[in-house]
Amino acid sequence: MAERRRLGYNVHREVLDEGEVEEMAEKSEEKTSLCENFNKSMRCSGPRMKKCLLGSFPVLSWLPRYSIRENALGDLISGISVGIMQLPQGMAYALLAAVPPVFGLYSSFYPVLIYFIFGTSKHISIGTYAVMSVMIGGVTERLAPDSKFEIQDNVTNLTIVDDVARDAERVQVAAAVTLLSGLFQILLGLVQFGFVVTYLSEPLVRGYTTGAAIHVIVSQLKYTFGINPVRYSGPFSLIYTVLEVCYLIPETNVGTLVVSIVAIVGLILAKELNAYLSKKLPVPIPVELLGVVVATLISWQVDLNGKYKVDVVGLIPSGLQPPVVPEASLFGQVIGDAFALAVVGYGIAISLGRIFALKYGYKVDSNQELIALGLSNTVGGFFQCFAISCSMSRTMVQESTGGKTQVAGALSAAVILVITLWIGTLFEELPKAMLAAIIYVNLHGMMKQFLDIPALWRSNKVDMVIWVVTFVLTLLFNPDLGLAASIGFSMLTVIFRTQLPKYSLLGQVPDTDIYRPLEDYNQVKQVPGILIFRSSATLYFANAEMYQEALGKKSGFDITKILSAKKKLEAKRKRHEKKNARKAKKDAKKNSVGMEVEPEEKEHRDVAVIDMDPEPNPSLPRAIILDLSPVNFLDTVGVKTLRGIHKDYGQIGIEVVLAGCQTGVVDNLQTGGFFNDKVTKSCLFTTVHDAVLHCQSSITQSQEKPLYENFTGTHF
Amino acid sequence: MAERRRLGYNVHREVLDEGEVEEMAEKSEEKTSLCENFNKSMRCSGPRMKKCLLGSFPVLSWLPRYSIRENALGDLISGISVGIMQLPQGMAYALLAAVPPVFGLYSSFYPVLIYFIFGTSKHISIGTYAVMSVMIGGVTERLAPDSKFEIQDNVTNLTIVDDVARDAERVQVAAAVTLLSGLFQILLGLVQFGFVVTYLSEPLVRGYTTGAAIHVIVSQLKYTFGINPVRYSGPFSLIYTVLEVCYLIPETNVGTLVVSIVAIVGLILAKELNAYLSKKLPVPIPVELLGVVVATLISWQVDLNGKYKVDVVGLIPSGLQPPVVPEASLFGQVIGDAFALAVVGYGIAISLGRIFALKYGYKVDSNQELIALGLSNTVGGFFQCFAISCSMSRTMVQESTGGKTQVAGALSAAVILVITLWIGTLFEELPKAMLAAIIYVNLHGMMKQFLDIPALWRSNKVDMVIWVVTFVLTLLFNPDLGLAASIGFSMLTVIFRTQLPKYSLLGQVPDTDIYRPLEDYNQVKQVPGILIFRSSATLYFANAEMYQEALGKKSGFDITKILSAKKKLEAKRKRHEKKNARKAKKDAKKNSVGMEVEPEEKEHRDVAVIDMDPEPNPSLPRAIILDLSPVNFLDTVGVKTLRGIHKDYGQIGIEVVLAGCQTGVVDNLQTGGFFNDKVTKSCLFTTVHDAVLHCQSSITQSQEKPLYENFTGTHF
Repeated sequence: MAERRRLGYNVHREVLDEGEVEEMAEKSEEKTSLCENFNKSMRCSGPRMKKCLLGSFPVLSWLPRYSIRENALGDLISGISVGIMQLPQGMAYALLAAVPPVFGLYSSFYPVLIYFIFGTSKHISIGTYAVMSVMIGGVTERLAPDSKFEIQDNVTNLTIVDDVARDAERVQVAAAVTLLSGLFQILLGLVQFGFVVTYLSEPLVRGYTTGAAIHVIVSQLKYTFGINPVRYSGPFSLIYTVLEVCYLIPETNVGTLVVSIVAIVGLILAKELNAYLSKKLPVPIPVELLGVVVATLISWQVDLNGKYKVDVVGLIPSGLQPPVVPEASLFGQVIGDAFALAVVGYGIAISLGRIFALKYGYKVDSNQELIALGLSNTVGGFFQCFAISCSMSRTMVQESTGGKTQVAGALSAAVILVITLWIGTLFEELPKAMLAAIIYVNLHGMMKQFLDIPALWRSNKVDMVIWVVTFVLTLLFNPDLGLAASIGFSMLTVIFRTQLPKYSLLGQVPDTDIYRPLEDYNQVKQVPGILIFRSSATLYFANAEMYQEALGKKSGFDITKILSAKKKLEAKRKRHEKKNARKAKKDAKKNSVGMEVEPEEKEHRDVAVIDMDPEPNPSLPRAIILDLSPVNFLDTVGVKTLRGIHKDYGQIGIEVVLAGCQTGVVDNLQTGGFFNDKVTKSCLFTTVHDAVLHCQSSITQSQEKPLYENFTGTHF
Repeated sequence: MAERRRLGYNVHREVLDEGEVEEMAEKSEEKTSLCENFNKSMRCSGPRMKKCLLGSFPVLSWLPRYSIRENALGDLISGISVGIMQLPQGMAYALLAAVPPVFGLYSSFYPVLIYFIFGTSKHISIGTYAVMSVMIGGVTERLAPDSKFEIQDNVTNLTIVDDVARDAERVQVAAAVTLLSGLFQILLGLVQFGFVVTYLSEPLVRGYTTGAAIHVIVSQLKYTFGINPVRYSGPFSLIYTVLEVCYLIPETNVGTLVVSIVAIVGLILAKELNAYLSKKLPVPIPVELLGVVVATLISWQVDLNGKYKVDVVGLIPSGLQPPVVPEASLFGQVIGDAFALAVVGYGIAISLGRIFALKYGYKVDSNQELIALGLSNTVGGFFQCFAISCSMSRTMVQESTGGKTQVAGALSAAVILVITLWIGTLFEELPKAMLAAIIYVNLHGMMKQFLDIPALWRSNKVDMVIWVVTFVLTLLFNPDLGLAASIGFSMLTVIFRTQLPKYSLLGQVPDTDIYRPLEDYNQVKQVPGILIFRSSATLYFANAEMYQEALGKKSGFDITKILSAKKKLEAKRKRHEKKNARKAKKDAKKNSVGMEVEPEEKEHRDVAVIDMDPEPNPSLPRAIILDLSPVNFLDTVGVKTLRGIHKDYGQIGIEVVLAGCQTGVVDNLQTGGFFNDKVTKSCLFTTVHDAVLHCQSSITQSQEKPLYENFTGTHF
């Protein structure tokens, strides 16, 4: 610190305006046109082709260099651990998607294999994801509601639901929406729209996932209580569902509730134990798998389904099924949902992928990720999977157990394959309440995100508002519409932030060339006769008017009043001159006939005019400096505003100069027609201090010349 | 110029970082809280009450000071001229609104009187407006279509439309939507939402009015050709209507077409004559009134309606009608249209009002204008008027004929009253084709707005895109939805402009403290060992990632690669040290049994490690300066990005300092947690030059100290 204090800042140069700087620094004129850029990017060559191929099939670039010695062990352990997690999660999330559990296993297999080939992130665990699943559940239950499959039982004469037909239809719907979302992702990836993810800012994603988690929880309440509420869809359906569940609580199946409570408590305890032992164990205990196995055993032994009417998973067909072309006729009805799924799935995967890429120092290609996810979903759609993304909890396990490459993912798929082929049928007696419990316990991480609110309140209030609004919108309008509304809102905040800027007058920090807002610092002095005005934001249509108003307010005098007074005075002067001319003619005539005009009368008249002078204000500044350094761009409205200020204040003899314009802003001024014969780049200065020096010198020079006060007061 | 060149810029001070500046300039801490501000604005007092009263009834403040000598004559001539224009325009625009012509006269009377009391603009001519009328026409024809009033004629057995019932219903609908839009305007005015008009940027308004003019023209084609096309509503209805008209052209009524052509040609010639004589005449010839009178006379003499089936205006009841409460049950169906009408009407009126306020040096209060228009529409709604705004053509006449205050408007209302009471019925034989012709001729000004496109192309391409997109959206989605979509689009452009900033490395203009982009200037030199990086836009969630990428690209080295290589090396070093330690132990043992270790072997091992060094780059910069002067605000994502850059580059020994932060940005950094024990405000500098001087001095100081290259290469 002490050493820096002695560091001198000494500058000796001439005061430079924009034109002079351009001359000195030789501004280059040639610019590459859009067309050339396009041609350049389209050029084709050998190495380019190779790069393109390797970019499209990342597996070709990393697998040949796979170091077995370094990675194989970690990948093996990690792959098995994740595969074991995929089993209960896949089945549980299938419930969320309202399809039979086995399709959750399929979704944990095919897409994972595809991602292995096309993906660029080494650490994320592709597969079923709670938020995506609940979104799919919304679609499937909307297009294939229970009510559509009600049949009259001939024997008991009761209305029952044809489960088999319903589930088949739901699988169809899920596959269709998955295929379509995959196609969307591929399309977005091909047109290089990976950047859309930038709209998903962190507060938005966290608010969104928290809101979606609430949807997930609410959708699982029926399994926990063993009740059968009506399915609502559309905005506010969450509220209706909660009310319905409350209404149905008296009908709770006690057996199911007991299973739920035992499962939840057991899982939480086991997880805590896991966390406690995490440093001592090489691989975490597969809590969920154990839970599933124990629950299945108990259910089978006690016959929970038969004796206590506890809902169980039911038939799990073993083996894989041949691919089926999803029904394209459904596409029209699910296009909106598919788009939302495409964006959400990509957003989650890319943000997790980036975190690990940063941690381990590699790169994920956002467009390639889009294509990889898109292909996973597209292929998945043919194999009756539902849309996938990557799950936070599995990804953490994959990384912490030593997974180093995409091979871990492929191994987890192999585990799932084994389960699907041979072991899956063993879980038919598993209570659904157990799966719901797994979902709850997996969501506790998302619930922790509520702590963001106080943290954001302290660090950035606007971001907190984004978080809360996103959360509320997601709750009210469901994850699909809610996401769109939230993105819209988060963009609006940018407008708001630039629309309500802070306007300040700047003053000089004594004995320096530094200018700071007068109201923020006590030892900052206004430069006599010069107003330095700055807006904290870009000047554009949404705040151009405010800019003008703020300048008027801060300057302390009413420019419109002075201008109109000046105009009136001028009109009066003209009338007066005309009269005088007439009078003079008359007088001349009179004189010619021998009479004399009294000089006092004329003087008296002049005095009257001077009295009408609109309070000539000696405290009027002599120059205004507009500091435009925070301006990012100027639109036509902005340029017009600046031109108006320059003209209006110029009319009453106040010089207006601009300071700190970026190169782009100077270009905007130029094409926008700010400059003309009289207004040249000599009214643009690089720094505020240059502008101040210039204004001070021109004030001194013109001290004798008439300025506005003099001009209106005495000069006619 | 020459004198300024000699003006020296000499600064001698110490290099100052943010902390030091704050100390020097004594940053003040206290801030007025939101709560205090609120209390302050709510305080009540005598003069405040008076100001509030005068603000609510502007007539009270200007009428008592009305100078008869100065204003009366101009206002009288202007009032009569405008009143004469209101007659044909009112009747013509009533056709647009699909209500009988007399309601156009009412709309030119009541609202004008109300505005006289509450309005703050002295020059705009309140009354019927083409765009508003066509929007109302959309509503009335949607809710009261011809098909709803078809009855079977018992005599001819043809289906005819019950005109009387239909028109009565349409008047009801128009009154309801007018009342509701008035209430919206009052509400918006009371909550001080006048600022919404700032979203209506000039390119948007001009594109919008041009698009709406096309709608107006298309809706009048049926009167010009005397055909009866089906009414379409909803998106793309314009296209359907045009197709329908083309399809029906063979059924053109020749008489009507002749009247149309004669009327249009006559009006254009008369207008040209008017423009030619404008300097010689004190008051323009009331072309439209003459046209209407002549057309009525001819129509009556020739019996155009009877002989040639030319559609005429028909029954015009004389006298005023008692107020009727509009049907509130319609509100639900017209709420969207009413809101659009409220915004459009206000937008047009305020933008015209501002133009004249600027010209004559007075102020229009945007919130009071909202309330004045709202009251005009609300009262108008009770008297079966349709929604009004201000018409550009009438306003031009009002101003050019010498109108100086709102009195001119009141006088024009008086003229309309006289016409309504006694003269109106004379116009019953007026062909509707004449009114359509008046509309066309009045719209020629709007058609001139197409010239904006080339002008904007030259001055600002983004604004041109806004113009064109607004125009197209208005055409396709009708004036109501089109407006919403256009406003949305124009806001998106702000995002796009800040989302695709220009990233540049800055270099020093020789012998100055000025830094400019290297690619824009030929004589700008990079400071050795220091990268100065600037984005042209604010750093926030939508471009934070690009900022990082651009920095990586511009810096010319891959930070992630270096970081991961460094991590690997460190891991290797650790392993190596462990091995060495083990070996040393072994050696020690061996030594203890009498054998010697060869020193070459150890050296050889070190060399091998050095070879694995990831190409140590001597051209790596020693410091990076991020010029943040264009940053308007930082959100949490922005702060995180900066923190990440500071940390990552810091890890490989590159110092990262920030320059040119505004006060608000420093606050954002502080609350966002950028600073900690190690990172203090001493890495923030006021100007880029300060930062450069600091970095240069610390480079010289550390020239002997090990930096990254040395560190990774040789130090273990």
